[in-house]
Amino acid sequence: MVSTIPFFMLSFLYKFNSAEAGKNEFKSYTVMNRIYLDNAATTALDPLVLEAMMPFLTTHYGNPSSVHGYGRDTRIAIENARKSVAAILGAKPSEIFFTAGGTESSNTAIISAVRDLRCKRIITSLTEHHATLHTVEYLHERGEAEVQYARLLPDGHIDMTNLETLLRESKSECLVSLMHANNETGNMLDIETAGELCKLYGAIFHSDAVQTVGHFPLNLSKTKVDMLSASGHKFHGPKGVGVLYVSEQIKIKPLIHGGSQERNMRAGTENVAGIIGFAKALELATENYDKESPYIRSLKLHLMTRLALQFPCVCFNGDACGSSLYTVLSVGFPKTEKTEMLLFNLDMSNICVSSGSACTSGANGGSHVIKAIRGNNDRVTVRFSFSKYNTKEEIDYVVEKLGELM
Amino acid sequence: MVSTIPFFMLSFLYKFNSAEAGKNEFKSYTVMNRIYLDNAATTALDPLVLEAMMPFLTTHYGNPSSVHGYGRDTRIAIENARKSVAAILGAKPSEIFFTAGGTESSNTAIISAVRDLRCKRIITSLTEHHATLHTVEYLHERGEAEVQYARLLPDGHIDMTNLETLLRESKSECLVSLMHANNETGNMLDIETAGELCKLYGAIFHSDAVQTVGHFPLNLSKTKVDMLSASGHKFHGPKGVGVLYVSEQIKIKPLIHGGSQERNMRAGTENVAGIIGFAKALELATENYDKESPYIRSLKLHLMTRLALQFPCVCFNGDACGSSLYTVLSVGFPKTEKTEMLLFNLDMSNICVSSGSACTSGANGGSHVIKAIRGNNDRVTVRFSFSKYNTKEEIDYVVEKLGELM
Repeated sequence: MVSTIPFFMLSFLYKFNSAEAGKNEFKSYTVMNRIYLDNAATTALDPLVLEAMMPFLTTHYGNPSSVHGYGRDTRIAIENARKSVAAILGAKPSEIFFTAGGTESSNTAIISAVRDLRCKRIITSLTEHHATLHTVEYLHERGEAEVQYARLLPDGHIDMTNLETLLRESKSECLVSLMHANNETGNMLDIETAGELCKLYGAIFHSDAVQTVGHFPLNLSKTKVDMLSASGHKFHGPKGVGVLYVSEQIKIKPLIHGGSQERNMRAGTENVAGIIGFAKALELATENYDKESPYIRSLKLHLMTRLALQFPCVCFNGDACGSSLYTVLSVGFPKTEKTEMLLFNLDMSNICVSSGSACTSGANGGSHVIKAIRGNNDRVTVRFSFSKYNTKEEIDYVVEKLGELM
Repeated sequence: MVSTIPFFMLSFLYKFNSAEAGKNEFKSYTVMNRIYLDNAATTALDPLVLEAMMPFLTTHYGNPSSVHGYGRDTRIAIENARKSVAAILGAKPSEIFFTAGGTESSNTAIISAVRDLRCKRIITSLTEHHATLHTVEYLHERGEAEVQYARLLPDGHIDMTNLETLLRESKSECLVSLMHANNETGNMLDIETAGELCKLYGAIFHSDAVQTVGHFPLNLSKTKVDMLSASGHKFHGPKGVGVLYVSEQIKIKPLIHGGSQERNMRAGTENVAGIIGFAKALELATENYDKESPYIRSLKLHLMTRLALQFPCVCFNGDACGSSLYTVLSVGFPKTEKTEMLLFNLDMSNICVSSGSACTSGANGGSHVIKAIRGNNDRVTVRFSFSKYNTKEEIDYVVEKLGELM
């Protein structure tokens, strides 16, 4: 086949940021003069991921369910993507199901645990993502399951003693749904211990790992988790694609009914390019983990140090120095006229940060996560979240800017 | 911003088929020597659609729910896409919800009609897509709704008299779910009459319009349909994105719970590039309808004529000469040793066709649609489905090849 560049590809308005032009060695598309520190909300698509997706957005458009060769080509690509994702996560290919995102994955896991695995009680926490909390509330309102919220320790971690008590005292089949890492505070669950407790008491264990898949090595064959949700766009993959891991030990039914895609587990023509992009992003994250994770961690530590030195009034939400995402730092500023305008003014300065979860950013009343941990929202919360594309110079610039704005 | 082409974009293996190189005036990515006549399964992404998507796969990666300017840029793009889709479909922007595809749209419509609108009876037909049939069966198995199947006329159309009888005799609130056009036979529903009947008897009316949105003009403000499903990849848009139209007259709850995306109707970070692609594909289809639809119809008629002349033994399934998609021709061949190998041998000749729905192509027992109409599967069915990228020369080549293979 001939390789030519059609006219339209010349017209994209972007800048390819190379090591020479930028400040670090990772390459991305960047918009000039914008500092993006909202990587827990979403990340830039890695150019290598887009490269892997492009054939499936151009020549390879066959429907994976079509029986002709053109369909089989995309079917093979999807199955190779599944094998790759499975190998990286320590799972079997038959345990990996592609979905439209982390939210659909968590909905499928939680609803199926109640409807197919007969869990009549759900143990979760008030700091979960709304994809979990609202699904649980939906089942509770319909009378399909009771809900209990595990107690939180002052640093926002799950009180494992309380979790064990709840499990021990439960008289029904239980689903435990606890996120591997909190998207607002960065707090990381001791997933091994939680899994052991669930096994000990015969509970089904689902974990929303949207903030950790692609950021931490996971070996699901050795972790006692029954179901796990992941999302492509949190680790430089595309939006609109996720994964649900379902241990071969359990059998659930689909949330979305129809065609026999995903071995009858998730109907609808596959988002082929998205699936290929998910797998490629996970492969890249895994290959580069040893290099990228210390780099990103150093950015977080640099911001923590500089903030602590320059603004002794700030606090760090959650267990920022302990078991925490290296990609997230949630900072509490004392409420003043100026700090209440902080997000707005940072935005005016082309600095992208958030007050918490993007998924709830339109909601009133502040973060449900910070409120659950601190009992109130008496501080102004700014979540900084980092990626391989950020630089120390960006962090320094942000701290200087904060000095001007506070 | 600077416009440069990074290295990786040079490496794509595709051929951009121009008017000079190809045989018709429509431009697409094509794979050399392959004749693709499976456009009811999925279509090639239009290069102009990909062009519209590319900024959202490169520079414009902000989360539409983020409150900073970078998130607002993608939010604005999504809302503009919604306005465009709404205007084309004769709907209000607040009636358009983006989903991950037609299957999710139909699942949402049918499940919400039962759970939120208290429809205790579903009237549908045995020729519906599995996205409808399996969802209906799921609700029936759970005891949430009774199901009735409207009678079919010998040509596969819905017997409207029977539909009216079922509606009149129903003692519960009803949902009617009937597809606008059948994906296997091409038969088109008289959606106006069906809508009028539903209104007359106070039923909720959902239509799976996956095969017609982007292929026929629709004005939902004048059609008495309450909910309607569409899928981007059926009209040269991307896979993994769909639309659910919900009339403002009815209020339903989400199928997928979590964040407040899509005005609390469909949780999960939006597939931004997919949504932009959906809107662009629909815009192009609408702009070019007057030119493309007669052209595609002429291909179908050409194939019908040539087949009828050369193979008097064939029949056309459904109402091929009447109220039928101009994009689909379902052909019944007498069962012989040779015709039973037809799909395989056409595939060997690089001709992509199907036996029916791609979504069920792995299933045993043949097409449920043909069986519902004919009472059996005593013929070999080959579905040819056309797009603007096909040519008369391709049709002639396929007929010649059939002559060799039969």
